[in-house]
Amino acid sequence: MANKISLPVIKRLPRYYRYVADLRREGVATVSSSELAEMLGTTASQVRQDFNCFGGFGQQGIGYNVDILSEELTKLLMGGSELSVILIGTGHLGRTMSHFLATEAPGYKLTAFFDKSPAEIGQRLEGLPIRDVENLPAFCKENQVDVAVLCIPEEEAAVLAPTLKHLGVRGFWNFSQYDLTFGEDVAVENVHLGDSLMSLGFRVRRGN
Amino acid sequence: MANKISLPVIKRLPRYYRYVADLRREGVATVSSSELAEMLGTTASQVRQDFNCFGGFGQQGIGYNVDILSEELTKLLMGGSELSVILIGTGHLGRTMSHFLATEAPGYKLTAFFDKSPAEIGQRLEGLPIRDVENLPAFCKENQVDVAVLCIPEEEAAVLAPTLKHLGVRGFWNFSQYDLTFGEDVAVENVHLGDSLMSLGFRVRRGN
Repeated sequence: MANKISLPVIKRLPRYYRYVADLRREGVATVSSSELAEMLGTTASQVRQDFNCFGGFGQQGIGYNVDILSEELTKLLMGGSELSVILIGTGHLGRTMSHFLATEAPGYKLTAFFDKSPAEIGQRLEGLPIRDVENLPAFCKENQVDVAVLCIPEEEAAVLAPTLKHLGVRGFWNFSQYDLTFGEDVAVENVHLGDSLMSLGFRVRRGN
Repeated sequence: MANKISLPVIKRLPRYYRYVADLRREGVATVSSSELAEMLGTTASQVRQDFNCFGGFGQQGIGYNVDILSEELTKLLMGGSELSVILIGTGHLGRTMSHFLATEAPGYKLTAFFDKSPAEIGQRLEGLPIRDVENLPAFCKENQVDVAVLCIPEEEAAVLAPTLKHLGVRGFWNFSQYDLTFGEDVAVENVHLGDSLMSLGFRVRRGN
């Protein structure tokens, strides 16, 4: 395992990546830590501290070279071999996320879809067949699966996730309401749409 | 404005709500702050502190009454009048979120859809017509709109969001890559799917 990077730093990386990509598109040559800090709503010292986790990205007196910074962030976030990803649950949300993974997810390679419904099994999505979820363990034994996307109800996620971990899956993009938690060797992104909408409603009602 | 509740507390409320709803379904009568803390991966003192923001929910020596706690959390998160919500951008993601709002979002009432594509305008979604986004300002003047769901590209979100705020929208469920930030009088939930997937990939690659 490489040096451990704290989760808040990791969560900020995609925003750095997006802002720096915008600067590059606009033809900006250099950017200072204070300029980046302002874009992100943080402090220059925070930016430098974050970047120091990765060797500092070579800031000079004049700031960071935007091209180099952009390449380094791209390498960090999408570099290396593609991650093999499977998606389970091809309902409304699953289909949308399949499309997202097929079109807007550099660094990931969709390798299989699974569902339990006979009406779904055998259909094609993004050029791949939808397989019977019963065959999931066999598939994971025969193929490397790095990441699983869960678009299934929480009861099913609660049963399936430990099995998938046991089969070698090291990352979960979890859209079920189930709060997935594993040890440090498995990465989880819980996207709880219901929670997000509930807390938004609370704030709007209170003017908070 | 009611007493200000901090954002981390607000973000935990939906999880309390879900766990307590599960307990109620299982027929559990009372629950202690330590039991809740264990479910949430936090401390009993944190739970009590959170609940104290809302008057404490009447804990006795024996713990919280699950029925009462569930009703109080429901009232907090979904009580009062329904929030009127519009959705802009009826592509893949927009359609999925429309379905989510129509079926899994108590406390919200879908009132209109907007898109800019002539192929979309005039079609129906969840029983409502898709309107021309050109008519958005007129619609917001004639109808109360509490929350806007943005399923549009970031350039469009950057232009539209300030207009919507000006028209009285007080909450944004933002799926565009654009980082919406407003003052305290507007609530924003940025759901950055791309960021989520990028940081997940980073962690899986590093074993972090």
